[in-house]
Amino acid sequence: MAKQEFLLTGTGGQGLILAAIMLAEAGINAGQNVAQSQSYGPEARGGASRAEVILGNEAIYYPKVEKPDFVLTLSQEAYKKYGLHLTEEAILIVDNSQVTEVKPRSKNLYSLPITKTARTQFGSEQSANVVALGVVASMSRSIPWENVMLAVQQRAPRGTAERNIKALELGWQMGRDAEAKLETRRCQNEVMSSGGINELGLEQE
Amino acid sequence: MAKQEFLLTGTGGQGLILAAIMLAEAGINAGQNVAQSQSYGPEARGGASRAEVILGNEAIYYPKVEKPDFVLTLSQEAYKKYGLHLTEEAILIVDNSQVTEVKPRSKNLYSLPITKTARTQFGSEQSANVVALGVVASMSRSIPWENVMLAVQQRAPRGTAERNIKALELGWQMGRDAEAKLETRRCQNEVMSSGGINELGLEQE
Repeated sequence: MAKQEFLLTGTGGQGLILAAIMLAEAGINAGQNVAQSQSYGPEARGGASRAEVILGNEAIYYPKVEKPDFVLTLSQEAYKKYGLHLTEEAILIVDNSQVTEVKPRSKNLYSLPITKTARTQFGSEQSANVVALGVVASMSRSIPWENVMLAVQQRAPRGTAERNIKALELGWQMGRDAEAKLETRRCQNEVMSSGGINELGLEQE
Repeated sequence: MAKQEFLLTGTGGQGLILAAIMLAEAGINAGQNVAQSQSYGPEARGGASRAEVILGNEAIYYPKVEKPDFVLTLSQEAYKKYGLHLTEEAILIVDNSQVTEVKPRSKNLYSLPITKTARTQFGSEQSANVVALGVVASMSRSIPWENVMLAVQQRAPRGTAERNIKALELGWQMGRDAEAKLETRRCQNEVMSSGGINELGLEQE
């Protein structure tokens, strides 16, 4: 697996540092090298919070995210700060009730009911961070489910493991569904732009 | 305040990542710039765990600890890995029941009953991480008590805030006492090496 860089952004209190630590430890469980960090500066006191995770097979020499592959934003303010100026390849996941104004993007934008799912399922948004973790981890395709589940079990505050595993499952499925939709669109686009199915290799030999 | 770099080391499960996050957030509460991170690699899976915090007034461009000012070690293995090869100026704090073999050091070595205090006071070593935080934070002299206490209150797992504040107090006092002893020794040495008290400025004017 090539190196993958993740930015989890939102506001303080949404539990994104914990989600980042869980993602990091899931990576360890999967045998990867991992760096996890948060930097706080004058700009961080404005309200937007940001946690970083880097996963990879090789040693990580520079431990800060430079060109994120996955950006999650759970607040409008974090979106303004971290969700613009990404490469086209970066996968941008925004919460559909918290981030309501989004600049159109030709691809890789997912607006998903992350906090809404937590609220509906658990009566509060407290597990939205773990729903988000499930989305990001499943979309990354780099960590097996078991490794993520174990990390959540180990890190969940006492008495919340069961609820958080359920939140993780919901997020994981949300990520898979979103990805599946993207795959379908991609294939349709390729078929359309290639003018036929031969170039997809389906009819060769 | 100049930049201060902290390494908190021990074994997995001792809660040092949480202690590092509390230290980082205490720094934020005190209006500082902060970077906090953990890197995990093949070497980390051997059992030694390591979390880093950098505090400073200025922007932190390189977020990894390069030359630690404070090194805490709560296990013999972590000591072997991180407690040797430090500068003389680095302040090395080891747990006196977990780290029993220590290379003599001419100065700045503190062997303190961190886990023992947690065990005696609370019946388990679970709050040893917060006792350790108290020691390190008070010895750093860079963060007011109130800012550390607030960070512990905010980050303590539900239902444990009171116990953890008490643990913090015990650690804070332990750090102050240890520092006071060092100061006394330092002054005695200076008096002896200067051959009198005038150079200490006590009798001037």
